[in-house]
Amino acid sequence: MADKPVLLQFSMTPLDKGESVSRYVARSLDIIDRSGLDYRTHAMGTILEGDLDACLAVVRACHARMAEDCNRISTTIKIDYRKGRSGRLTSKTASLERHLGRPLKKAGDPA
Amino acid sequence: MADKPVLLQFSMTPLDKGESVSRYVARSLDIIDRSGLDYRTHAMGTILEGDLDACLAVVRACHARMAEDCNRISTTIKIDYRKGRSGRLTSKTASLERHLGRPLKKAGDPA
Amino acid sequence: MADKPVLLQFSMTPLDKGESVSRYVARSLDIIDRSGLDYRTHAMGTILEGDLDACLAVVRACHARMAEDCNRISTTIKIDYRKGRSGRLTSKTASLERHLGRPLKKAGDPA
Amino acid sequence: MADKPVLLQFSMTPLDKGESVSRYVARSLDIIDRSGLDYRTHAMGTILEGDLDACLAVVRACHARMAEDCNRISTTIKIDYRKGRSGRLTSKTASLERHLGRPLKKAGDPA
Repeated sequence: MADKPVLLQFSMTPLDKGESVSRYVARSLDIIDRSGLDYRTHAMGTILEGDLDACLAVVRACHARMAEDCNRISTTIKIDYRKGRSGRLTSKTASLERHLGRPLKKAGDPA
Repeated sequence: MADKPVLLQFSMTPLDKGESVSRYVARSLDIIDRSGLDYRTHAMGTILEGDLDACLAVVRACHARMAEDCNRISTTIKIDYRKGRSGRLTSKTASLERHLGRPLKKAGDPA
Repeated sequence: MADKPVLLQFSMTPLDKGESVSRYVARSLDIIDRSGLDYRTHAMGTILEGDLDACLAVVRACHARMAEDCNRISTTIKIDYRKGRSGRLTSKTASLERHLGRPLKKAGDPA
Repeated sequence: MADKPVLLQFSMTPLDKGESVSRYVARSLDIIDRSGLDYRTHAMGTILEGDLDACLAVVRACHARMAEDCNRISTTIKIDYRKGRSGRLTSKTASLERHLGRPLKKAGDPA
Protein backbone atom coordinates (compact mmCIF):
# COMPACT_ATOMS: atom_id res chain seq x y z
CA MET A 1 0.00 0.00 0.00
CA ALA A 2 1.24 3.45 -0.84
CA ASP A 3 2.58 5.57 1.97
CA LYS A 4 0.16 8.24 3.14
CA PRO A 5 2.21 10.12 5.73
CA VAL A 6 0.23 13.39 5.69
CA LEU A 7 -2.96 14.41 7.40
CA LEU A 8 -3.87 17.84 6.04
CA GLN A 9 -6.77 19.68 7.64
CA PHE A 10 -8.07 22.79 5.96
CA SER A 11 -10.86 25.33 6.05
CA MET A 12 -11.48 27.84 3.24
CA THR A 13 -13.94 30.73 3.55
CA PRO A 14 -14.87 33.70 1.40
CA LEU A 15 -14.83 37.01 3.32
CA ASP A 16 -16.89 39.00 0.83
CA LYS A 17 -20.10 36.94 0.72
CA GLY A 18 -21.74 37.66 4.07
CA GLU A 19 -22.14 35.40 7.08
CA SER A 20 -23.75 32.42 5.30
CA VAL A 21 -21.11 30.73 3.19
CA SER A 22 -22.17 27.08 2.99
CA ARG A 23 -23.04 27.44 -0.70
CA TYR A 24 -19.37 28.21 -1.41
CA VAL A 25 -17.97 25.63 1.02
CA ALA A 26 -20.16 22.91 -0.52
CA ARG A 27 -18.31 23.35 -3.83
CA SER A 28 -15.03 22.55 -2.06
CA LEU A 29 -16.56 19.42 -0.53
CA ASP A 30 -17.71 18.36 -3.98
CA ILE A 31 -14.12 18.65 -5.26
CA ILE A 32 -12.76 16.82 -2.19
CA ASP A 33 -15.33 14.02 -2.41
CA ARG A 34 -14.48 13.40 -6.08
CA SER A 35 -10.70 13.69 -5.62
CA GLY A 36 -10.05 10.05 -4.83
CA LEU A 37 -8.21 10.96 -1.61
CA ASP A 38 -9.51 9.59 1.64
CA TYR A 39 -10.96 12.36 3.82
CA ARG A 40 -13.21 13.12 6.76
CA THR A 41 -15.18 16.33 7.18
CA HIS A 42 -16.33 17.94 10.43
CA ALA A 43 -17.84 21.19 11.69
CA MET A 44 -14.58 23.17 11.42
CA GLY A 45 -12.98 21.82 8.27
CA THR A 46 -11.97 18.73 6.34
CA ILE A 47 -9.04 16.36 6.84
CA LEU A 48 -7.32 14.80 3.82
CA GLU A 49 -4.93 11.84 3.96
CA GLY A 50 -2.24 11.19 1.38
CA ASP A 51 1.17 12.45 0.42
CA LEU A 52 1.85 16.17 0.66
CA ASP A 53 1.61 16.97 -3.04
CA ALA A 54 -1.67 15.11 -3.51
CA CYS A 55 -3.24 16.90 -0.53
CA LEU A 56 -2.01 20.32 -1.63
CA ALA A 57 -3.35 19.69 -5.15
CA VAL A 58 -6.86 19.37 -3.70
CA VAL A 59 -6.44 22.59 -1.70
CA ARG A 60 -5.32 24.41 -4.86
CA ALA A 61 -8.29 23.08 -6.85
CA CYS A 62 -10.72 24.27 -4.17
CA HIS A 63 -9.01 27.68 -4.07
CA ALA A 64 -9.11 28.09 -7.85
CA ARG A 65 -12.82 27.29 -7.86
CA MET A 66 -13.61 29.71 -5.04
CA ALA A 67 -11.52 32.50 -6.60
CA GLU A 68 -13.76 32.38 -9.70
CA ASP A 69 -16.36 34.48 -7.92
CA CYS A 70 -14.91 35.45 -4.52
CA ASN A 71 -12.55 38.42 -4.15
CA ARG A 72 -11.21 37.68 -0.68
CA ILE A 73 -10.62 34.17 0.66
CA SER A 74 -9.22 33.12 4.03
CA THR A 75 -7.68 29.65 4.33
CA THR A 76 -6.21 27.84 7.32
CA ILE A 77 -4.23 24.62 6.88
CA LYS A 78 -2.65 22.31 9.44
CA ILE A 79 -0.41 19.47 8.32
CA ASP A 80 0.65 16.53 10.48
CA TYR A 81 3.39 14.57 8.72
CA ARG A 82 4.59 11.29 10.20
CA LYS A 83 7.08 9.25 8.22
CA GLY A 84 5.98 5.72 7.32
CA ARG A 85 2.43 5.96 8.64
CA SER A 86 -0.94 5.48 6.98
CA GLY A 87 -4.52 5.12 8.16
CA ARG A 88 -4.32 7.89 10.71
CA LEU A 89 -7.70 9.38 9.73
CA THR A 90 -9.17 6.78 12.08
CA SER A 91 -6.25 5.42 14.12
CA LYS A 92 -5.38 8.61 16.00
CA THR A 93 -8.77 8.86 17.71
CA ALA A 94 -8.84 5.10 18.34
CA SER A 95 -5.48 5.40 20.11
CA LEU A 96 -6.85 8.10 22.42
CA GLU A 97 -9.85 5.90 23.24
CA ARG A 98 -7.53 3.01 24.13
CA HIS A 99 -5.57 5.28 26.46
CA LEU A 100 -8.77 6.44 28.16
CA GLY A 101 -10.52 3.07 28.16
CA ARG A 102 -13.79 4.59 26.99
CA PRO A 103 -15.32 5.93 23.77
CA LEU A 104 -15.19 9.63 22.86
CA LYS A 105 -17.70 11.65 20.87
CA LYS A 106 -16.53 11.67 17.26
CA ALA A 107 -17.28 14.31 14.67
CA GLY A 108 -19.83 12.22 12.78
CA ASP A 109 -21.86 11.38 15.90
CA PRO A 110 -25.45 12.69 15.94
CA ALA A 111 -26.59 15.52 18.18
CA MET B 1 -32.01 26.67 25.66
CA ALA B 2 -28.84 28.55 26.45
CA ASP B 3 -27.08 30.25 23.60
CA LYS B 4 -23.99 28.39 22.40
CA PRO B 5 -22.65 30.72 19.71
CA VAL B 6 -19.05 29.44 19.70
CA LEU B 7 -17.43 26.46 18.02
CA LEU B 8 -13.85 26.30 19.33
CA GLN B 9 -11.51 23.79 17.74
CA PHE B 10 -8.16 23.19 19.36
CA SER B 11 -5.10 20.97 19.25
CA MET B 12 -2.45 20.97 22.02
CA THR B 13 0.87 19.14 21.67
CA PRO B 14 4.04 18.89 23.76
CA LEU B 15 7.20 19.55 21.73
CA ASP B 16 9.64 18.00 24.21
CA LYS B 17 8.27 14.45 24.46
CA GLY B 18 9.25 12.88 21.12
CA GLU B 19 7.03 11.96 18.21
CA SER B 20 4.48 9.82 20.11
CA VAL B 21 2.34 12.12 22.19
CA SER B 22 -1.02 10.36 22.53
CA ARG B 23 -0.40 9.68 26.23
CA TYR B 24 -0.38 13.44 26.84
CA VAL B 25 -3.22 14.23 24.46
CA ALA B 26 -5.42 11.58 26.12
CA ARG B 27 -5.29 13.58 29.37
CA SER B 28 -6.78 16.57 27.56
CA LEU B 29 -9.56 14.40 26.16
CA ASP B 30 -10.28 13.17 29.66
CA ILE B 31 -10.70 16.78 30.83
CA ILE B 32 -12.84 17.64 27.81
CA ASP B 33 -15.06 14.57 28.16
CA ARG B 34 -15.75 15.37 31.83
CA SER B 35 -16.24 19.12 31.26
CA GLY B 36 -19.95 19.02 30.57
CA LEU B 37 -19.52 20.89 27.28
CA ASP B 38 -20.68 19.24 24.11
CA TYR B 39 -17.73 18.32 21.89
CA ARG B 40 -16.60 16.19 18.95
CA THR B 41 -13.07 14.90 18.51
CA HIS B 42 -11.34 13.99 15.23
CA ALA B 43 -7.89 13.15 13.92
CA MET B 44 -6.59 16.73 14.06
CA GLY B 45 -8.16 18.14 17.22
CA THR B 46 -11.35 18.55 19.20
CA ILE B 47 -14.28 20.93 18.69
CA LEU B 48 -16.09 22.39 21.72
CA GLU B 49 -19.47 24.11 21.59
CA GLY B 50 -20.60 26.69 24.14
CA ASP B 51 -20.03 30.32 24.98
CA LEU B 52 -16.53 31.73 24.60
CA ASP B 53 -15.61 31.77 28.29
CA ALA B 54 -16.74 28.18 28.90
CA CYS B 55 -14.76 26.94 25.90
CA LEU B 56 -11.61 28.85 26.87
CA ALA B 57 -11.86 27.54 30.44
CA VAL B 58 -11.51 23.99 29.09
CA VAL B 59 -8.51 24.98 26.98
CA ARG B 60 -6.86 26.54 30.05
CA ALA B 61 -7.51 23.43 32.17
CA CYS B 62 -5.91 21.21 29.52
CA HIS B 63 -2.93 23.57 29.26
CA ALA B 64 -2.41 23.67 33.02
CA ARG B 65 -2.44 19.87 33.16
CA MET B 66 0.02 19.51 30.28
CA ALA B 67 2.36 22.17 31.70
CA GLU B 68 2.77 20.07 34.85
CA ASP B 69 5.32 17.89 33.07
CA CYS B 70 5.89 19.39 29.61
CA ASN B 71 8.30 22.29 29.09
CA ARG B 72 7.22 23.33 25.63
CA ILE B 73 3.64 23.17 24.36
CA SER B 74 2.24 24.23 20.99
CA THR B 75 -1.49 25.01 20.77
CA THR B 76 -3.62 25.99 17.80
CA ILE B 77 -7.16 27.29 18.29
CA LYS B 78 -9.81 28.29 15.78
CA ILE B 79 -13.01 29.95 16.90
CA ASP B 80 -16.15 30.33 14.81
CA TYR B 81 -18.60 32.67 16.56
CA ARG B 82 -22.08 33.12 15.15
CA LYS B 83 -24.55 35.20 17.11
CA GLY B 84 -27.74 33.46 18.14
CA ARG B 85 -26.81 29.99 16.91
CA SER B 86 -26.56 26.63 18.69
CA GLY B 87 -26.20 23.02 17.60
CA ARG B 88 -23.60 23.72 14.95
CA LEU B 89 -21.44 20.73 15.96
CA THR B 90 -23.74 18.69 13.74
CA SER B 91 -25.72 21.21 11.67
CA LYS B 92 -22.82 22.66 9.68
CA THR B 93 -21.94 19.34 8.04
CA ALA B 94 -25.61 18.49 7.53
CA SER B 95 -26.06 21.79 5.68
CA LEU B 96 -23.18 20.92 3.31
CA GLU B 97 -24.75 17.51 2.63
CA ARG B 98 -28.07 19.18 1.78
CA HIS B 99 -26.30 21.48 -0.67
CA LEU B 100 -24.57 18.53 -2.33
CA GLY B 101 -27.50 16.14 -2.20
CA ARG B 102 -25.34 13.26 -0.98
CA PRO B 103 -23.63 12.16 2.24
CA LEU B 104 -20.02 13.06 3.03
CA LYS B 105 -17.47 11.06 5.02
CA LYS B 106 -17.59 12.34 8.60
CA ALA B 107 -14.79 12.22 11.13
CA GLY B 108 -16.28 9.35 13.14
CA ASP B 109 -16.77 7.09 10.11
CA PRO B 110 -14.76 3.86 10.11
CA ALA B 111 -11.83 3.23 7.80
CA MET C 1 11.24 39.94 36.27
CA ALA C 2 7.93 38.17 35.93
CA ASP C 3 7.86 35.03 33.86
CA LYS C 4 6.33 35.51 30.43
CA PRO C 5 6.34 31.99 29.03
CA VAL C 6 3.64 32.47 26.39
CA LEU C 7 3.75 33.90 22.91
CA LEU C 8 0.14 34.09 21.70
CA GLN C 9 -0.46 35.05 18.09
CA PHE C 10 -3.99 35.81 17.01
CA SER C 11 -6.04 37.14 14.14
CA MET C 12 -9.74 38.06 14.48
CA THR C 13 -11.94 38.92 11.50
CA PRO C 14 -15.65 39.64 11.00
CA LEU C 15 -17.19 37.55 8.21
CA ASP C 16 -20.30 39.69 7.74
CA LYS C 17 -18.74 43.06 6.91
CA GLY C 18 -17.41 42.57 3.37
CA GLU C 19 -13.83 42.30 2.20
CA SER C 20 -12.47 45.48 3.83
CA VAL C 21 -12.27 44.92 7.56
CA SER C 22 -9.44 47.15 8.78
CA ARG C 23 -11.89 49.45 10.56
CA TYR C 24 -12.87 46.53 12.83
CA VAL C 25 -9.35 45.16 13.20
CA ALA C 26 -8.07 48.60 14.23
CA ARG C 27 -10.32 48.48 17.32
CA SER C 28 -8.59 45.29 18.41
CA LEU C 29 -5.18 46.90 17.96
CA ASP C 30 -6.35 49.81 20.09
CA ILE C 31 -7.26 47.39 22.89
CA ILE C 32 -3.96 45.51 22.49
CA ASP C 33 -1.86 48.66 22.44
CA ARG C 34 -3.48 49.92 25.67
CA SER C 35 -3.38 46.52 27.43
CA GLY C 36 0.05 46.89 28.96
CA LEU C 37 1.22 43.59 27.47
CA ASP C 38 4.20 43.61 25.19
CA TYR C 39 3.19 42.82 21.61
CA ARG C 40 4.26 42.99 17.97
CA THR C 41 1.86 43.28 15.07
CA HIS C 42 2.43 42.14 11.48
CA ALA C 43 0.49 41.64 8.24
CA MET C 44 -1.24 38.44 9.39
CA GLY C 45 -1.95 39.06 13.06
CA THR C 46 -0.54 40.22 16.37
CA ILE C 47 1.74 38.43 18.84
CA LEU C 48 1.27 38.98 22.59
CA GLU C 49 3.82 38.02 25.25
CA GLY C 50 2.88 37.25 28.86
CA ASP C 51 1.35 34.48 30.89
CA LEU C 52 -1.51 32.51 29.39
CA ASP C 53 -4.33 34.16 31.34
CA ALA C 54 -3.14 37.70 30.62
CA CYS C 55 -2.88 36.96 26.90
CA LEU C 56 -6.30 35.28 26.74
CA ALA C 57 -7.87 38.22 28.60
CA VAL C 58 -6.82 40.52 25.75
CA VAL C 59 -8.25 38.12 23.15
CA ARG C 60 -11.54 38.03 25.05
CA ALA C 61 -11.69 41.84 25.30
CA CYS C 62 -11.13 42.16 21.55
CA HIS C 63 -13.82 39.53 20.86
CA ALA C 64 -16.36 41.21 23.13
CA ARG C 65 -15.77 44.53 21.36
CA MET C 66 -16.11 43.00 17.89
CA ALA C 67 -19.26 41.07 18.85
CA GLU C 68 -20.98 44.35 19.68
CA ASP C 69 -21.70 44.90 16.00
CA CYS C 70 -20.50 41.81 14.12
CA ASN C 71 -22.66 38.68 13.86
CA ARG C 72 -20.02 36.24 12.68
CA ILE C 73 -16.36 36.35 13.75
CA SER C 74 -13.53 34.01 12.80
CA THR C 75 -10.50 33.85 15.12
CA THR C 76 -7.27 31.89 14.82
CA ILE C 77 -4.88 31.61 17.77
CA LYS C 78 -1.49 29.95 18.05
CA ILE C 79 0.21 29.63 21.43
CA ASP C 80 3.88 28.79 21.97
CA TYR C 81 4.50 28.07 25.66
CA ARG C 82 8.03 27.56 26.88
CA LYS C 83 8.61 27.18 30.60
CA GLY C 84 10.92 29.72 32.20
CA ARG C 85 11.43 31.91 29.14
CA SER C 86 10.79 35.59 28.52
CA GLY C 87 11.71 38.07 25.81
CA ARG C 88 10.95 35.75 22.93
CA LEU C 89 9.12 38.45 20.93
CA THR C 90 12.57 39.46 19.72
CA SER C 91 14.92 36.61 20.68
CA LYS C 92 13.43 33.91 18.45
CA THR C 93 14.17 35.78 15.23
CA ALA C 94 17.59 36.85 16.51
CA SER C 95 18.44 33.21 17.15
CA LEU C 96 17.56 32.29 13.56
CA GLU C 97 19.78 35.11 12.26
CA ARG C 98 22.68 33.83 14.38
CA HIS C 99 22.22 30.35 12.91
CA LEU C 100 22.23 31.75 9.38
CA GLY C 101 24.93 34.35 9.91
CA ARG C 102 22.97 37.04 8.10
CA PRO C 103 19.98 39.32 8.72
CA LEU C 104 16.44 38.32 7.69
CA LYS C 105 13.58 40.59 6.62
CA LYS C 106 11.47 41.30 9.69
CA ALA C 107 7.81 42.18 9.76
CA GLY C 108 8.38 45.86 10.52
CA ASP C 109 10.84 46.39 7.65
CA PRO C 110 9.73 48.82 4.93
CA ALA C 111 8.74 47.70 1.45
CA MET D 1 3.97 44.62 -12.00
CA ALA D 2 2.87 41.04 -11.48
CA ASP D 3 -0.13 40.42 -9.31
CA LYS D 4 0.76 39.13 -5.84
CA PRO D 5 -2.68 38.48 -4.33
CA VAL D 6 -1.57 36.01 -1.64
CA LEU D 7 -0.11 36.51 1.79
CA LEU D 8 0.83 33.04 3.09
CA GLN D 9 1.99 32.76 6.68
CA PHE D 10 3.47 29.49 7.83
CA SER D 11 5.27 27.84 10.70
CA MET D 12 6.93 24.41 10.41
CA THR D 13 8.28 22.51 13.43
CA PRO D 14 9.75 19.05 14.00
CA LEU D 15 8.09 17.20 16.88
CA ASP D 16 10.83 14.60 17.37
CA LYS D 17 13.85 16.84 18.06
CA GLY D 18 13.18 18.15 21.57
CA GLU D 19 12.21 21.62 22.66
CA SER D 20 15.02 23.55 20.90
CA VAL D 21 14.32 23.52 17.19
CA SER D 22 15.89 26.72 15.85
CA ARG D 23 18.60 24.71 14.04
CA TYR D 24 15.88 23.11 11.91
CA VAL D 25 13.82 26.26 11.47
CA ALA D 26 16.90 28.18 10.31
CA ARG D 27 17.17 25.86 7.29
CA SER D 28 13.65 26.88 6.24
CA LEU D 29 14.55 30.55 6.56
CA ASP D 30 17.59 29.94 4.38
CA ILE D 31 15.33 28.46 1.68
CA ILE D 32 12.83 31.31 2.05
CA ASP D 33 15.50 34.03 1.95
CA ARG D 34 16.97 32.59 -1.28
CA SER D 35 13.57 31.94 -2.93
CA GLY D 36 13.22 35.33 -4.57
CA LEU D 37 9.78 35.85 -3.00
CA ASP D 38 9.25 38.85 -0.79
CA TYR D 39 8.75 37.81 2.83
CA ARG D 40 8.80 39.00 6.43
CA THR D 41 9.65 36.79 9.39
CA HIS D 42 8.51 37.22 13.00
CA ALA D 43 8.49 35.33 16.30
CA MET D 44 5.67 32.96 15.29
CA GLY D 45 6.34 32.28 11.61
CA THR D 46 7.11 33.79 8.24
CA ILE D 47 4.83 35.58 5.77
CA LEU D 48 5.38 35.12 2.02
CA GLU D 49 3.86 37.33 -0.68
CA GLY D 50 3.21 36.15 -4.23
CA ASP D 51 0.76 34.03 -6.15
CA LEU D 52 -0.54 30.87 -4.50
CA ASP D 53 1.58 28.39 -6.44
CA ALA D 54 4.82 30.29 -5.85
CA CYS D 55 4.14 30.52 -2.12
CA LEU D 56 3.20 26.83 -1.83
CA ALA D 57 6.33 25.84 -3.74
CA VAL D 58 8.45 27.42 -0.98
CA VAL D 59 6.46 25.61 1.72
CA ARG D 60 7.00 22.30 -0.10
CA ALA D 61 10.75 22.93 -0.45
CA CYS D 62 11.03 23.65 3.28
CA HIS D 63 9.03 20.52 4.10
CA ALA D 64 11.14 18.29 1.84
CA ARG D 65 14.31 19.59 3.49
CA MET D 66 12.96 19.06 7.03
CA ALA D 67 11.68 15.56 6.20
CA GLU D 68 15.24 14.50 5.32
CA ASP D 69 16.02 14.02 9.01
CA CYS D 70 12.79 14.64 10.95
CA ASN D 71 10.17 11.90 11.35
CA ARG D 72 7.28 14.02 12.53
CA ILE D 73 6.61 17.59 11.37
CA SER D 74 3.77 19.93 12.31
CA THR D 75 2.93 22.78 9.93
CA THR D 76 0.36 25.56 10.20
CA ILE D 77 -0.47 27.75 7.21
CA LYS D 78 -2.78 30.72 6.89
CA ILE D 79 -3.53 32.23 3.49
CA ASP D 80 -5.11 35.62 2.88
CA TYR D 81 -6.03 35.97 -0.79
CA ARG D 82 -7.29 39.28 -2.09
CA LYS D 83 -7.87 39.65 -5.80
CA GLY D 84 -5.89 42.38 -7.54
CA ARG D 85 -3.79 43.42 -4.57
CA SER D 86 -0.02 43.57 -4.04
CA GLY D 87 2.29 45.07 -1.44
CA ARG D 88 0.24 43.93 1.53
CA LEU D 89 3.30 42.74 3.49
CA THR D 90 3.62 46.37 4.59
CA SER D 91 0.34 48.06 3.65
CA LYS D 92 -1.95 46.12 6.00
CA THR D 93 -0.20 47.32 9.14
CA ALA D 94 0.13 50.85 7.74
CA SER D 95 -3.64 50.90 7.19
CA LEU D 96 -4.25 49.98 10.84
CA GLU D 97 -1.91 52.76 11.97
CA ARG D 98 -3.82 55.26 9.83
CA HIS D 99 -7.09 54.17 11.42
CA LEU D 100 -5.63 54.57 14.91
CA GLY D 101 -3.65 57.73 14.21
CA ARG D 102 -0.58 56.40 16.01
CA PRO D 103 2.24 53.91 15.39
CA LEU D 104 2.02 50.29 16.54
CA LYS D 105 4.85 47.99 17.60
CA LYS D 106 5.88 45.99 14.56
CA ALA D 107 7.50 42.58 14.56
CA GLY D 108 10.98 43.85 13.67
CA ASP D 109 11.05 46.44 16.46
CA PRO D 110 13.72 45.95 19.15
CA ALA D 111 12.94 44.83 22.68
